[in-house]
Amino acid sequence: MQNSRSKPCSCPSLKLREVASMYFTMVAAFLVILVVALQGSAPRQSDFPYKVPLDPQGLLELSWNVSYPEQTVHFQLLIRDLQFGLLFGMSDRGEFENADLAVLWSDGHNSYFGDAWSDAKGELHMDSQQDYQLLGARRAPEGLYLLFRRAFSTCDPKDYLIEDGTVHLIYGFLEKPVHSLQAINISALHGGLQRVQLLKPNISIPELPRDMKTMEITAPDVVIPSQETTYWCYMAELPEGFPKHHIIMYEPVVTAGNEALVHHMEVFQCAAEFDSFPHYNGPCDSKMKPDRLNYCRHVLAAWAMGAQAFYYPEEAGLAFGGPGSSRYLRLEIHYHNPLVFKGRRDSSGIRLYYTATLRPYDAGIMELGLVYTPVMAIPPGEDSFILTGYCTDKCTQLALPAAGIRIFASQLHTHLAGRKVVTVLVRDGRERQVVNADGHYSPHFQEIRMLKEVVAVFPGDELVTTCTYNTEDRSRATVGGFGILEEMCVNYVHYYPQTQLELCKSAVDPGYLHRYFNLVNRFNDEEICMCPQVSVPQQFYSIPWNTFNRDVLKSLYGFAPISMHCNKSSAVRFPGEWEKQPLPSITERLREPVPRCPPAPEPQPAAPVPLNLGQLRR
Amino acid sequence: MQNSRSKPCSCPSLKLREVASMYFTMVAAFLVILVVALQGSAPRQSDFPYKVPLDPQGLLELSWNVSYPEQTVHFQLLIRDLQFGLLFGMSDRGEFENADLAVLWSDGHNSYFGDAWSDAKGELHMDSQQDYQLLGARRAPEGLYLLFRRAFSTCDPKDYLIEDGTVHLIYGFLEKPVHSLQAINISALHGGLQRVQLLKPNISIPELPRDMKTMEITAPDVVIPSQETTYWCYMAELPEGFPKHHIIMYEPVVTAGNEALVHHMEVFQCAAEFDSFPHYNGPCDSKMKPDRLNYCRHVLAAWAMGAQAFYYPEEAGLAFGGPGSSRYLRLEIHYHNPLVFKGRRDSSGIRLYYTATLRPYDAGIMELGLVYTPVMAIPPGEDSFILTGYCTDKCTQLALPAAGIRIFASQLHTHLAGRKVVTVLVRDGRERQVVNADGHYSPHFQEIRMLKEVVAVFPGDELVTTCTYNTEDRSRATVGGFGILEEMCVNYVHYYPQTQLELCKSAVDPGYLHRYFNLVNRFNDEEICMCPQVSVPQQFYSIPWNTFNRDVLKSLYGFAPISMHCNKSSAVRFPGEWEKQPLPSITERLREPVPRCPPAPEPQPAAPVPLNLGQLRR
Repeated sequence: MQNSRSKPCSCPSLKLREVASMYFTMVAAFLVILVVALQGSAPRQSDFPYKVPLDPQGLLELSWNVSYPEQTVHFQLLIRDLQFGLLFGMSDRGEFENADLAVLWSDGHNSYFGDAWSDAKGELHMDSQQDYQLLGARRAPEGLYLLFRRAFSTCDPKDYLIEDGTVHLIYGFLEKPVHSLQAINISALHGGLQRVQLLKPNISIPELPRDMKTMEITAPDVVIPSQETTYWCYMAELPEGFPKHHIIMYEPVVTAGNEALVHHMEVFQCAAEFDSFPHYNGPCDSKMKPDRLNYCRHVLAAWAMGAQAFYYPEEAGLAFGGPGSSRYLRLEIHYHNPLVFKGRRDSSGIRLYYTATLRPYDAGIMELGLVYTPVMAIPPGEDSFILTGYCTDKCTQLALPAAGIRIFASQLHTHLAGRKVVTVLVRDGRERQVVNADGHYSPHFQEIRMLKEVVAVFPGDELVTTCTYNTEDRSRATVGGFGILEEMCVNYVHYYPQTQLELCKSAVDPGYLHRYFNLVNRFNDEEICMCPQVSVPQQFYSIPWNTFNRDVLKSLYGFAPISMHCNKSSAVRFPGEWEKQPLPSITERLREPVPRCPPAPEPQPAAPVPLNLGQLRR
Repeated sequence: MQNSRSKPCSCPSLKLREVASMYFTMVAAFLVILVVALQGSAPRQSDFPYKVPLDPQGLLELSWNVSYPEQTVHFQLLIRDLQFGLLFGMSDRGEFENADLAVLWSDGHNSYFGDAWSDAKGELHMDSQQDYQLLGARRAPEGLYLLFRRAFSTCDPKDYLIEDGTVHLIYGFLEKPVHSLQAINISALHGGLQRVQLLKPNISIPELPRDMKTMEITAPDVVIPSQETTYWCYMAELPEGFPKHHIIMYEPVVTAGNEALVHHMEVFQCAAEFDSFPHYNGPCDSKMKPDRLNYCRHVLAAWAMGAQAFYYPEEAGLAFGGPGSSRYLRLEIHYHNPLVFKGRRDSSGIRLYYTATLRPYDAGIMELGLVYTPVMAIPPGEDSFILTGYCTDKCTQLALPAAGIRIFASQLHTHLAGRKVVTVLVRDGRERQVVNADGHYSPHFQEIRMLKEVVAVFPGDELVTTCTYNTEDRSRATVGGFGILEEMCVNYVHYYPQTQLELCKSAVDPGYLHRYFNLVNRFNDEEICMCPQVSVPQQFYSIPWNTFNRDVLKSLYGFAPISMHCNKSSAVRFPGEWEKQPLPSITERLREPVPRCPPAPEPQPAAPVPLNLGQLRR
C-alpha cells in the first residue's frame, strides 16, 4: 500500500487539524506582509484604468481594473475625509439590505477591515468566508487609499456575483467610532449608491489614423441649475459644406470638479429633411425649447459615468457630414445634483475623433425588441414580468447581406419599470450567443457598451430581446408606448456594414389579443367593454387582475403569432407579409454559466484584519 | 501591524503553494493509513443497521448507516464474486448517464478506487473533488468488503445530493481488466438499479409491552412463478372471537436466499360488511381469484425492500380484531424475478407484534391528495407537470379534534407517470413544515415511511399534496382515475388519535373545467365536441395540445375553485358546502434548504487511491 503522492515532510507528526490551522495562519501572515509591503509604494494610475466618484461631493473615489484570466476585480478606494470608517459593497439594485460589503471600521483606537454582509433587516454580519481581500492601505495628502480585490464569483451564497452589465455599488460613512461590525446601524448611515459597469470589456485599441482630427461638442460654460435633475440641451453645428467623415472614437470632456455631477451625455444628429435648426442652449424640458429639436434623435455618441473612450472597430466608422446628413447636432447633458449646489459652471461635453480617410465600412444602428404599441402590456403588481421582442429569420433573410453583419456595441433601453434586458442570437432554433445582457439593468443608467465579443449575424438568424419589468408599485396595467409611464423594450445595436434595416421588432398579433380580452370576459363573468371604440389601453385597464388573467396573458404572449416590423426606416417596411407571423420556436437554450469558484487554497480567516492606521480621525 | 492569529511555525520559509500541497499530501497519507488500519478489523454488523441486495442474484450486498450530526452515510459493500472491479453510485432515476459513481477497477495487476461521474453520453470522468471517501477494504471468505463514506451534500455540481425519500442506486460489474476510468464502456456493462430510502429516520424504539404476542402472516411455501413480476395473494384469518388488539410493531419475514426476489409485501384487512371471504392462495391477477378479495384494501402493514421493522409511537397502536372489524386478512407479495429463476420456494410474509393492553390511542390512516376523477388531467408530452390536491382549513376545522392529530408515517402513491410527491402543512396561509417529500419518487417503490419528525395538525390547518408527472412517452392526455394508465396523487398518512376523517382530497370544479374546454375551443378555432354526452376524458383526448392550451390548463388548476371531499368514509361527506370552494392561498413558501457543504479541509486529491488487493480475479 503505497501513496504515490507522499513526499518527505519535515513535520511528520502534525495532525490534520494542525496542518489546516497552520495553513490558515500562513495565509493570514502572508496577507499582513502584503499590507506592509504596499504601504510604501503608491499604486500607479495606469494600474486602475477605470474611475468613478461614488458620492455627489466626490469624497469617495473608486478606481478599478479587471483581470479576466484571474476572474478578479482590483479596487482602489480613495477616501478623502475619513472619519471612523466606511462601508463599500454591492447589492442587487443598490439597497443596503442583502448587500455584500467590505467594511473599514475604527473603535477610536484600532482599525479593522472585513468582508461582511447585511441581512434582509439590514443587520451586519461578518462573512464566514472573507472574499474582499485587503491588499494594502496607504495615507496620502489627498486621503487614505484602500486597495483590495474580489473574485467575480466566490461561490459563497452570501456574496454578490459580479456579472456583465450594471453593478449597483453602495457606500456609507461611519461618523462615530464603532466597537464591532454588529454595532453599525445601517439605517442611520450617511451613504448612497452609484451604478457602474464593473466588468469593462478587455478590448485592444485599434490603430488610429494620422489624419485624425478632433471636434469638441461641449456646453458653453453653463450654470448648472440648482435642482436635482436637469437635462441640458445645446445645439451645435458642423461647418457649412463639411464633407462625409468617419467618427472613429469619442471620449468625454468633463469639467474638473464636476465629475460627480455630470451623469451622462449624448450627441444627436438632427433629421436631414430640415434645412436648418434653431440655436438653443437651455434645459431640454423648457417651454422655450423650439419643437424642431425633437427631430434631433439620431445618436452619434453617448457616454455615461464610469465609461471611458468609445472606439469603433478598425474596419468601420460612424458616418457624419456630407450630403444627405444634417449639419446640426444636439448635445444633451444629464446633470445629477442631489445636493443642490448653486452656481456651478460647466463646460462638459464629448470630444469626437474623426477622419476623412473613410474606413471600409459605415457603422449602423439597428433597433431590436418590441414595437411601441399598447398591445404589449404588463399587469400591475408583478415583481418580474417578462416581455419578448423578436427579429425573425424572415426579416434577417431579406435584409442582411450574405456575409452578415457584425454587432460590436449595444445600448439597452426601457422606461421606469425595466429591471433586466437580454438579447440572444438564435440560429436554427438554437440559442447560440448572448449579444448583450444586463441582469441588474437600471433605466437610470443607459450607456452604449462595447461588447466583449463581436457578434456575427447572418441572413436567417433570429435576435430575441427579453425585458423583465417590475410593476409592484403600480395599480393598473402598464402598456407599451412612448410615455414615461408606458414601457419600451429596446436594444440599439451598433454594427457594420450598415444595411437598410433600421428596425427589426415585433408585437403580439392584435387579433389574438382581442381573443384574450374575449376569453377573460367570458371566463371571469366580468364585463370588460369590448366595443370597438374602446382603446386597447382602456381594455387592459379594466381587466380584473387575478392569477388566471395574469397567467393567460403570459401564455398568450408565449403562443400567439406576431406582427413584425422589419423596416427600412421607422415607417417603411421591407416588402413582404409581416402580419400573423409564427413565433420563432427555440428548441435549445443557452446554459446558465456555472460560476467559477476561487481555487481551494484562497479563502481567508473569518476574522477582521487589523490595520495599523493610527487614530483615524485626523 | 500585528496579526493576532499568527503562531510560531517551524517551517517559516514555506510558500503558500507548498503549504497547500503539503496539506493535501497529509490528507492522502492519512487516508492510506486508515485503509491499512481497517484491513485488520472486521466492521461489526451493528455498525450498519440497513442492508439491501443490489442485484437479483445477491452478488452485491449493500449495508449502510446514517449519521445526521455528520450529515454522512457510511457504506459497506460486500462483493461476492469480484472480477475486475465494479461501479456503484446514484443517479436521478437510476440511469447510468449523469450518474455519481464510486469505481473500483483493476488493470489486472493493480487496483484503484476513485470518485467519478458519467456525463450525458455515459462517458466516465474522474471527479475533481473526491467525495466518495474510501475508508477500508477487506477480504473475507464470503467476498471483498469495501468501506467508504459520502456526505449527503458535497456542493460539487457533478455530485448527487442525497435527500430524504427514494434514492436510485446503480451498480455495474467490470468483467475485463481496464487500464483507466475513461476506458470503461458503460453501455456494455452488466449492471442494474436498486431503489432504497438511504436516509432512514433516526427514531428511538419505543418500549414494548411484556404481554406482546406475535402473529406471522406468511405465504404457505409457494413456488415463485418463473416470470419477472408476480403479485401473489394469500388469504389468512384471525381466530374466531379474536378481540380488539393493537398492532404496535411489524417486521418482514423473508425466506433465506430470497432476499433479492421479495420486492414488497402488504397485509390488508377485508371489509367488515361481509361475514366471510373465500380462501385463496395464488397470483392476484388470476382469473381464478374470487372477486370478493377486492374488498380487502384496508392496509394493516406494508414493507418494501430495504425497510426495517415498523414501530408505532408509544401512545398509539393500530386496532385489529374485535366487533366491527373483519377476521379476514389478505397478504400480497410482489416477487421481482428478472432472471426468471424456476422452482424457488418462498414462505415470506410479515410478522405482526400486538398487544391486548390497548395503548391510549387508536392509530388511523387518512387519504390526502386528489380525488380519483378525470377532471384532473395531465397533457401528453410533459416532462414535469404538476397537479395539486388540497385538504382545506374548512375540512380540518370540522373534522379534527381541538388537540389536533399527530402524523407519524406516510405512504405516497401515484400510478406510472408519478415522479415526485410532496405534502406540506400550511397554517394561516404560510407553509410551515414538510410532512413527507420524495423528489425521486418511483411508482415501483411505495413503502410506508416513518417520518423523521411527527407532524402535529390542528383544526384550521391545510395539507397540500403536490405530484409531478412525466408523460413524455404518451400521445394523449392522462386523466385521473383508477386505471393503471390513469393517474392518482395520494398520500396515505398514518396518525393518531384516529378521527372520523378518512379522506381529505380535492379536484377542480367541473364547471370551471367546462369553461376551459369552451375557451380552448374558441381560442384555437378548433372543434372540440362539448355536447353533454361527451365524457371529460373524451374532451381531454380531443384537445390539440399546443403551448397555449397546456399553459392555460396549468393556470386553470392554479386558479379555479375546487370541489372538496371531506369524507367520513369514501362515500360519506361531512355535512357542509363542499362545492366551488376557494383554493387555499399560500402567501409564504418554505425555503429550499441550503445544502450544508463539507467543512473546507476535507476534499481529497483528485487522483485514484491505489489499493493493495493483489490480483483481483481469484
